[in-house]
Order: sequence, then C-alpha cells, then structure tokens
Amino acid sequence: MQSFTELQEQFEQFFAQHHFPAEPSTLYEPCSYLLHMGGKRVRPVLCLMSQELFAPLNDDSWNTATAIELFHNFTLMHDDIMDAAPMRRGKETVHVKYDTSTAILSGDVMNIFAYVHLNKINRSYIHDVISLFNKTAIQICEGQQLDMDYEKRTSVTLEEYMHMITLKTSVLLGASVKLGAMLGGATEGCSDVLYSFGKCLGLAFQLRDDYLDLYGESSKTGKQLGGDVMSNKKTFLMAKAFELCDDAGRKELLDLLDRNDPEKVQEMKELLSRWQIQEHLLESIRHFSDQAFYFLEKAPVLSKRKMALQELATQLLNREH
Amino acid sequence: MQSFTELQEQFEQFFAQHHFPAEPSTLYEPCSYLLHMGGKRVRPVLCLMSQELFAPLNDDSWNTATAIELFHNFTLMHDDIMDAAPMRRGKETVHVKYDTSTAILSGDVMNIFAYVHLNKINRSYIHDVISLFNKTAIQICEGQQLDMDYEKRTSVTLEEYMHMITLKTSVLLGASVKLGAMLGGATEGCSDVLYSFGKCLGLAFQLRDDYLDLYGESSKTGKQLGGDVMSNKKTFLMAKAFELCDDAGRKELLDLLDRNDPEKVQEMKELLSRWQIQEHLLESIRHFSDQAFYFLEKAPVLSKRKMALQELATQLLNREH
Repeated sequence: MQSFTELQEQFEQFFAQHHFPAEPSTLYEPCSYLLHMGGKRVRPVLCLMSQELFAPLNDDSWNTATAIELFHNFTLMHDDIMDAAPMRRGKETVHVKYDTSTAILSGDVMNIFAYVHLNKINRSYIHDVISLFNKTAIQICEGQQLDMDYEKRTSVTLEEYMHMITLKTSVLLGASVKLGAMLGGATEGCSDVLYSFGKCLGLAFQLRDDYLDLYGESSKTGKQLGGDVMSNKKTFLMAKAFELCDDAGRKELLDLLDRNDPEKVQEMKELLSRWQIQEHLLESIRHFSDQAFYFLEKAPVLSKRKMALQELATQLLNREH
Repeated sequence: MQSFTELQEQFEQFFAQHHFPAEPSTLYEPCSYLLHMGGKRVRPVLCLMSQELFAPLNDDSWNTATAIELFHNFTLMHDDIMDAAPMRRGKETVHVKYDTSTAILSGDVMNIFAYVHLNKINRSYIHDVISLFNKTAIQICEGQQLDMDYEKRTSVTLEEYMHMITLKTSVLLGASVKLGAMLGGATEGCSDVLYSFGKCLGLAFQLRDDYLDLYGESSKTGKQLGGDVMSNKKTFLMAKAFELCDDAGRKELLDLLDRNDPEKVQEMKELLSRWQIQEHLLESIRHFSDQAFYFLEKAPVLSKRKMALQELATQLLNREH
C-alpha cells in the first residue's frame, strides 16, 4: 500500500510520457500545454489507490487512471471555453492562448485518446469499465449543462444545486474509486460501496470549495475572497440562503445580487451570517465527510489497507486551498 | 442482399428511436435537432451493406452503424462552430439556433453516446472495433485541424490537400466499410481490401464535391456555383492550379484570391480552363473511382453479393448534388 503522495509522483512520471503524435502540432501542442499545467491528479490516483486495496497495481489501472485524467482535462478545456475563463492554474486557458476552435478540437481529440487508453485494458474487464466510464462522462456533461442553465436563473433550490454538483463533480470521484476496485477484482457489492465513498468525498470536496471562496484565507487559496459572490455564482451558500431567508431577507439578497461594488462581498457575508448559512454549510460538509468515511469503513477490506485512502480523504476535506 | 435505399430506410427507422434522455432538454434537444435534419446516412448504411456481404445483418452492425452516424453528427456540430457556418441542410446550425456553449457540450455528449452504442457489441469484437473507431476518430480530428491550418495559408500543395481530405473525409468511409466487414466475420485481408474500397470511394466523393462547386448545376446542387471560389477555400482545383501554373499564372491566381467581386468566379473558371485544371480533376476522380472499384472487385466475396455496393458507389460518384 502506497500513500497518495507516492502514487501521485509515480502517476506524474507515467503521465508525463508523450500522449500524442507530434503532428499536427497545432492540434496536439494545446493538449500537452494543458496537461503540463499540472494539478493534484486526485482522480487517477484515487483509481490507483482503490485498485491497490485488492491487488498489486496492474497495467489496467494505470491505463484507466490515464484515461480518467485525459477525460478530466478534456472537460476542463471545454468548460473554460463555456465559462469564458481567461486563466487556469495561473496560466492562460487554451482558448485564450490559442483560439476557441483549437480548444474545441484539441479537447475532442483528448477525449478520444481517453478511449484509446481504455481500449488497452484486459478484455474481460473492458465492457464494464467502458460502461461506467460512459455513464459517468454523460453525467458530467449533464452537470455542466445544468450549471450553465442555472447561471441564467436568479436562484436555484438546494436540491437542484446538490444534484448539479453530484453530476458535475462527484460522480467522477466515485467512478475513479469504483473503476480501481473493479480492476482490482473487487466484488460488485464492494465496488459499489467504494463508489459511494468517492461520491460523498466529491460532494464534501465541492462544498469545501464553496466554503473556501468566502471563508478561506486569500493567502492560502491564491484567489481573491468572494470571487463566487462577485460573479453571482450559484453555490451552496446562495441556494441555502434562498431557502432559509424570509421575504425581507430574500429581497435583500436579490438587491445584493444586483450590485457590483466592492462592499458586496462584506454585506453578503453579513447577510449569510444573520441566517447562519456558514454553519449550515459546515454541517453539510461534515455530513458528507462522515458519510464518506462510513462507506470506506463499510468496504470489506482489511482496515490497515484503507489507511492511505483515509489519510487522503482527511487531507482533501481539511484543505485550505 | 438489400439495396442502399432499402437499408437506408431501415436505418432511418432504427435511428429515429430516442437516443437521449429527456432531461436536461437544453443538452439533448440540440442533439435531436441536428439528427433530425436528416442526411443520406451514407456511412452507417455502408457499414450495414458491408456486413451483409458476409452474413445476415446482426445487432452488432446496427449498433456500430448508429455509433458511426452519432460520431459523424458530433463532428458536424463542432465543425460548424469552427467554420462559423450559419446553415446546414437549409436549417440553422446548432450554435446559431442555440449558442456556442450548447453546440460544444451537445456535441461532446453525442460523441460519448457513440461509445455507448459501441460498448453494446459482442465482447469478442469490441476491442478491434473500438480500436479502428478510435484511430479513425483521431484522424478525422487531425484532418479538421489541417483544414483550419490551411485556411490561414495562401496555398497548399496537392499532396497536402489530398492528405487533408484523406483524414477529414475518406477514412470514415473506409472505416465504416471495414467495421461492417469485421462484424460480418471477414478475414483481416478481406476487410483491409474493403477499407481501401471505402477510402478511395471517399476520396472520389470529396473530389466530386470540389467539381460540383464550380462545374455543377446550381438547380441541382442547391448551392450557388463557385461558393468555394468566393470563400477562397482550398480545393483540388486551387492546389492543382498552384502546382501547374507558371509564375505569371500564379500571380494572376493570387490577384484573383484577393478579389471579392461577382466576376471573380467567372475569371477563375477561365484561368483554370487555360491550365486544364478541370480535366485534371476529372482525371483524378476517375482514378480514385477506378481504384475503388478495383478494390471492391478484389474482395473475395461472390460478385453477386457485391452488386448493391457497386450500385451505391456508381450512384455516389455520378451524383450531381
């Protein structure tokens, strides 16, 4: 059993191999550019760690981990176009550095390369692996669509918001863990429990993001506090506020959403504080963390083997950036 | 053995099934909108016809044909964004009717659904089928990239142009035929020969397109003659002209490319006529048609069984629209 950091390093080395042909460089350079921006590689490493719960690491899980990371980067490339995001990890996004057509097509080809890696795995697993991969990929597209749909609305319910982040973010963490378990030879029951672990982890992870935007430390997150508030992003905080506020509070909230001055963030913080929204968010993060650990605990694997995943989950859920 | 028209009708019925979930409708409606624009369904029907050379139609080839048509429509949706095309088959393109983000994401999900259908086929074929499918999909992305790269240049060589249309257009026809053959149980040698048939057919088909733009009949093509000339599109005619003209001719060509007046098309026609470019194009179409028929002839299948494909090829190569 290796730790997250150990496997992260190994994956980074493996992943740094050349994925793409040299030509046409106008197509493949933007792919490499995005992949070399780095990132925590949480999803592929979750897949590897989960496989290692059951058996020594095998080629199938390396290929699947690679497919997961390629797919994830493909969605980032396209999401950045849709969100008109100028920067990612301190660098220009692909559609800004190159152009939109390039970002569309390079994303497309990166998605196909994910399937190239999936198609390398052992034939007895291939159907089930591609089946879960496809299902997850479709859910992620649906989640991104809901996110865009919600952007056009004034408010979303908490139920809608949780549904959206489940699709957009957490199913991929669930699938990463489950795919690893499947490739390690876990029973269906066991890999389903681990899917639930990953999914709850993903939800807690996303809610932690919502929390850090307003209550984090700018010096640690590297982002200006209240970015979500300034751009009227739908987050747990907004959805919960709309749910709990009375008519006067909701009116105040709507007025705040219409504003764009520097005081907006502070006043939003005060409004949320009056309705104890921060506490509700913390409570919700705790709930999904507890659930995640409950499912991990439940998985019929020696406790000792689960320590690395437990450690990673603790780390992810307490992160300050 | 059924004719193209018979299989086309059957495929149309099969394909009209609901491909997508109802929700989010903002994601899936644009997919259905594009699919319902119709089209000749040449690629999936080629797959079915090729499978029928060897055995009665089976579910695997229906699923593969569906995947091919979904994939093809995904590329159309994204190509239309990149080409800023306002219309397709007389209707607004997806990014115009909806918006660019929608066209990106709906295209993405349609591509995934292609893999959903591929993943339904018999496990003993799945690796080889997905392998050829992936390879072809990658080539098509590369071809589209080259097309965009060439747009920014004044001229391309004939070799570059032929390479580009091989990737962008003809490999999918080759793969459609080969996938059908594989699923019919053809030997590798036989399915390779049929791949060559499809690829040459695709090249002749694309060159016929180049021909019809300038020498077709507007009443039959439904397009204004000389559309490619007006938009300075790189076609066989342009590449060959740059190859054959002397310095003075090339200068004249460059001057023409700089113009935008209504006389441009007529003057281009005259210039091309002076250098017999039309004849070279017809000769090239003939060459690839002959090659296509040669490969079809060579396939070790009873001649009688090949008649439907022969008929289709003749029809495609003599089309006037």
